[in-house]
Amino acid sequence: MSFVSSVPQLHHIPYALWQPLPLDRVRLEAGFWKNKQDLNHRISLEHAHRMLEQWGNFQNFRIAAGYAQGSYQGREFLDSDVYKWLEAVAYDLIPNPSSSLRQLAEAAIDLVAAAQEPSGYLNTYHQLVKPDAHWSDLDHGHELYCAGHLFQAAIAYHRATGETKLLAIATRFADHIDATFGPNKRSGTCGHPEIEMALVELYRETGEERYLKLAQYFIDERGKGKMRGLGWYGAEYHQDRVPVRQATEIEGHAVRALYLLSGVTDLYLETGEEALLKSAMSQWHDMTSGKIHITGGVGSRYEGESFGVAYELPNDQCYCETCAAIASIMWNWRMLLATGEARFADVMEQTLYNGFLSGLAADGQHFFYINPLLSRGGYIRAEWYPVACCPPNIMRTLTSIAQYIATRDSSGVQLHHYASCTIQTPLLSLRLETDLPWQGKVKITVTAASDMPCTLSLRIPVWTDKAQIFVNGELATVSTANEYAHLGRTWKSDDVIELDLPMYPRLIEGHPMIESTRCSVAVQRGPLVYCLEQQDQAPGVDILGVEIDENSPLIVEQNSHRLEGISTIRASGYALDTSGWASDLYKPLGTIESRSRRSVELKFIPYYAWGNHDAGAMRVWIPRSSL
Amino acid sequence: MSFVSSVPQLHHIPYALWQPLPLDRVRLEAGFWKNKQDLNHRISLEHAHRMLEQWGNFQNFRIAAGYAQGSYQGREFLDSDVYKWLEAVAYDLIPNPSSSLRQLAEAAIDLVAAAQEPSGYLNTYHQLVKPDAHWSDLDHGHELYCAGHLFQAAIAYHRATGETKLLAIATRFADHIDATFGPNKRSGTCGHPEIEMALVELYRETGEERYLKLAQYFIDERGKGKMRGLGWYGAEYHQDRVPVRQATEIEGHAVRALYLLSGVTDLYLETGEEALLKSAMSQWHDMTSGKIHITGGVGSRYEGESFGVAYELPNDQCYCETCAAIASIMWNWRMLLATGEARFADVMEQTLYNGFLSGLAADGQHFFYINPLLSRGGYIRAEWYPVACCPPNIMRTLTSIAQYIATRDSSGVQLHHYASCTIQTPLLSLRLETDLPWQGKVKITVTAASDMPCTLSLRIPVWTDKAQIFVNGELATVSTANEYAHLGRTWKSDDVIELDLPMYPRLIEGHPMIESTRCSVAVQRGPLVYCLEQQDQAPGVDILGVEIDENSPLIVEQNSHRLEGISTIRASGYALDTSGWASDLYKPLGTIESRSRRSVELKFIPYYAWGNHDAGAMRVWIPRSSL
Repeated sequence: MSFVSSVPQLHHIPYALWQPLPLDRVRLEAGFWKNKQDLNHRISLEHAHRMLEQWGNFQNFRIAAGYAQGSYQGREFLDSDVYKWLEAVAYDLIPNPSSSLRQLAEAAIDLVAAAQEPSGYLNTYHQLVKPDAHWSDLDHGHELYCAGHLFQAAIAYHRATGETKLLAIATRFADHIDATFGPNKRSGTCGHPEIEMALVELYRETGEERYLKLAQYFIDERGKGKMRGLGWYGAEYHQDRVPVRQATEIEGHAVRALYLLSGVTDLYLETGEEALLKSAMSQWHDMTSGKIHITGGVGSRYEGESFGVAYELPNDQCYCETCAAIASIMWNWRMLLATGEARFADVMEQTLYNGFLSGLAADGQHFFYINPLLSRGGYIRAEWYPVACCPPNIMRTLTSIAQYIATRDSSGVQLHHYASCTIQTPLLSLRLETDLPWQGKVKITVTAASDMPCTLSLRIPVWTDKAQIFVNGELATVSTANEYAHLGRTWKSDDVIELDLPMYPRLIEGHPMIESTRCSVAVQRGPLVYCLEQQDQAPGVDILGVEIDENSPLIVEQNSHRLEGISTIRASGYALDTSGWASDLYKPLGTIESRSRRSVELKFIPYYAWGNHDAGAMRVWIPRSSL
Repeated sequence: MSFVSSVPQLHHIPYALWQPLPLDRVRLEAGFWKNKQDLNHRISLEHAHRMLEQWGNFQNFRIAAGYAQGSYQGREFLDSDVYKWLEAVAYDLIPNPSSSLRQLAEAAIDLVAAAQEPSGYLNTYHQLVKPDAHWSDLDHGHELYCAGHLFQAAIAYHRATGETKLLAIATRFADHIDATFGPNKRSGTCGHPEIEMALVELYRETGEERYLKLAQYFIDERGKGKMRGLGWYGAEYHQDRVPVRQATEIEGHAVRALYLLSGVTDLYLETGEEALLKSAMSQWHDMTSGKIHITGGVGSRYEGESFGVAYELPNDQCYCETCAAIASIMWNWRMLLATGEARFADVMEQTLYNGFLSGLAADGQHFFYINPLLSRGGYIRAEWYPVACCPPNIMRTLTSIAQYIATRDSSGVQLHHYASCTIQTPLLSLRLETDLPWQGKVKITVTAASDMPCTLSLRIPVWTDKAQIFVNGELATVSTANEYAHLGRTWKSDDVIELDLPMYPRLIEGHPMIESTRCSVAVQRGPLVYCLEQQDQAPGVDILGVEIDENSPLIVEQNSHRLEGISTIRASGYALDTSGWASDLYKPLGTIESRSRRSVELKFIPYYAWGNHDAGAMRVWIPRSSL
């Protein structure tokens, strides 16, 4: 296997302050994220293959290819799940080149090839169900959306294996789309953004500028207010209310909004058009100052799977789709490359460890589509979904997650996220060792260095406030900017940088305009948000009727018996006696004379680890006992 | 015009403790509800006629009748809006027999007649769009639902005018349905309950027992777990998860659940089958102890327009559909008849004055479909909706609202709701005068009496605790049971009963397991829940960032300049300075050192009156300043 390329390697991104590293240059080693990646490799990817067979995704391709008889099965976007799975397998092949998954992938690619029309068009739903109506429902038909996922899979497979078969399918389809859409051709853009960032990446992979121009065309076409919304929503559902460059609020379907912003930021990274970055910045501020949960979850509303208005952040009825968390990670990564500001990496980290990872069960084969911060019971992970966007999206995120760890520029290397891994760059190669998120220490060993001066930049996460850096055992004086510590010197092999990020459990409160956090606190330690799960509490303690004593210490317990290796946290609190309420919901103030309660111990686990046992209650925000 | 019948007159309901009065025997006089009824008569009913023309409802009938060319317009249940409007107009004709609305109604009835198939079948959507597929989608097709609304309209028109044309259409269709469905015939029941209560009423109106049996059949068919749900919902969406008699939880689509329970309770009232009442009671307890807002609004979730789980009562993302409030009123009325317990009338009253009435704008021609308890801005009343179930449902409720005031039995008369009106019964005729909901006094004058002993029973509303009753100026000693005061004597003309229901503004708190009311209070006076609306506050006071001083007095101001005649309430509170939060949503506890705030005056208006000006913010639950 030869690596022709990797997450963008050959292509220099002109308006990125820092360049991403090829995925084969960052290899996870034993640790938290490697465990997740291994689970994905061992269990999830094969599970997904079975599911894609069981739910008809592969069969749709067989029928479209003429290999089988029958009718199309499922919703109109089922092809995209095959593509996301192919992308996930592709990146998995980088650390696991001789994996048996490769055969499964090659068979799938053969099917995809066989289903493609001579024109280059490829979408089994439209080929089988609406053969005479290609592009007839851009608002809701998901044709360009599926194409985008095909492109991303093809790029990944090419980068991982050097094979060009899937890339050729992708470029044939991209050429067909380019011949179909554009000025003086058919107008319009896809109701579900995705193709924009895929086309920019296809341009990066192939050097074909038409793809970049086509991405720009689809972005420019947006915001004419013509798309049919959904339910109570109008054009804002599709981010079509205002032109992209005029948008200041993040609105509508969350995954759509964030995929679009990923594409918009990608376009900025290539063209440097300031209006694009300015709009993205406004929307980022709008999101982070009013529309994001403490878990990084976004999309407050079931209705339209969409963003709400500022401070509308319900714990129970939020949507916080796993795909939206992934989309937020993708967008924040691009904003980080564009700006070099750690706040984007902070949002990535908060999302990765909480609202993203909660989507995956400990067994690797059950998933949450929706990630609430409060369950009164009844939320159960499923092995798959009729709309199965999330499971393979989790898989491709895990197999490509190492891309987010580090970047390089002409003068150095930047570390954004800390996981045990090895990193190779032209100036510097590194080995990272850490027990994050359980311990806040990171040991960085220089394994190779040029004899040139080189700046190593380390992100200082927002969750710590007394970070210290030691170089070869001595406290280092560093310059900091945008929450990065910069260590400039001529490095040599075996230099050791130790990063100490003190990590203690903290109580977090929410902005007073958020209803769902009122008089409550959440427990956080390092990047991990914690939660109470019913099954962990003593008998008779109903977590829906407890308070936390915010003045008592939070006790961290390492190596709990539960869920291999996680740290749990104990707190003191109270169980409320609500018997005075009988069956009433509302009473005149003062009718309930005294609040009767008894002391109890509260046991917290990391939020991402909830929902691995039964369908019991769970909550993140706990009322304060002093109020 | 002769009154052949009225809300059930000829028919004695065997298992009702109390019998309803014909609508022509209770006539509203100048006062709160008469104002609403007059607005409905003057504005809403004609507005609806224009909308039914504009949105194609009438045109669908014309096309089905062969009077016009074209294709069906709108969703599959548009016929039902015509029927609800006809029912509303019918009851409006009782106090307004020479209204020009009658001509509009007769023209509509002629259209309906012309559209009916020779078989008796009548549903313009299925006739025009799926002519060969009658009854092919009972789960979502709404055919029996529309039939039920036709029957209710026909009964109303017959009762109000004595005309039988619409009733004949209804019975012809009912006979067709009866010939189609049942044991040894086609099986199944409608995904949207409605026909059950309509068939029971059609039985009451015509004496035809087949209709009662058919209602029972449709109720018995429910709960086989076979219906396709919607979105994230399975069969529980349609109340099809468990058989009706085994249901203990109220679940799924709120209007469906409550229409079904109305039909189930109606069936109990005719058959006396205890299992039906027992199940209804369990579901009532489930609803009122965990799933109803302080406004009487029900249906916590946008998703599926449905009930949530216990204590899931969000202020902003609740659905609280106007139709669900109406359905709750209908069901609680039937439970009151079945049990004689005032708690059902209490729920009716709480709903009528708040979560129902909020659906209607002060101008009579704009409506809320959804009735949140918190708006951060953006909720706007519409003149009509693509799914327009609510507006004509409001109209039929207002024109028939007098039916809920009083009942009779062999020994007396019972008053459940207090509005200025005249009441005629065989034993006793009364005149009620009251300024409710602004003042808590009711004057009841006997205008005719038989020379028999007769018990006058007066409901003591749950919102007062020092009720007094005077008879001819002297404090009366009364026996009370189930929150009714019973006054037994031989009444004579000009006897005066004065009911004093002390009414002072109160702060209400919510059950500690409700998240959205945490550390907050609502203001209530009498049956009215109050709210803050942004436009009423002093400049610079953002109602989304205020607290109420729960120890300061609440000042009632009568005859406000706003919205003709309403009482407003002033309270002391604080406006929070949230500048310390900058653009952060979450901070470690203690980071915001002190809560900076300034004293402000808070001006409350009745909840039902909100949303009559702009799309500004509104909230019912206000954080307490001492917490």
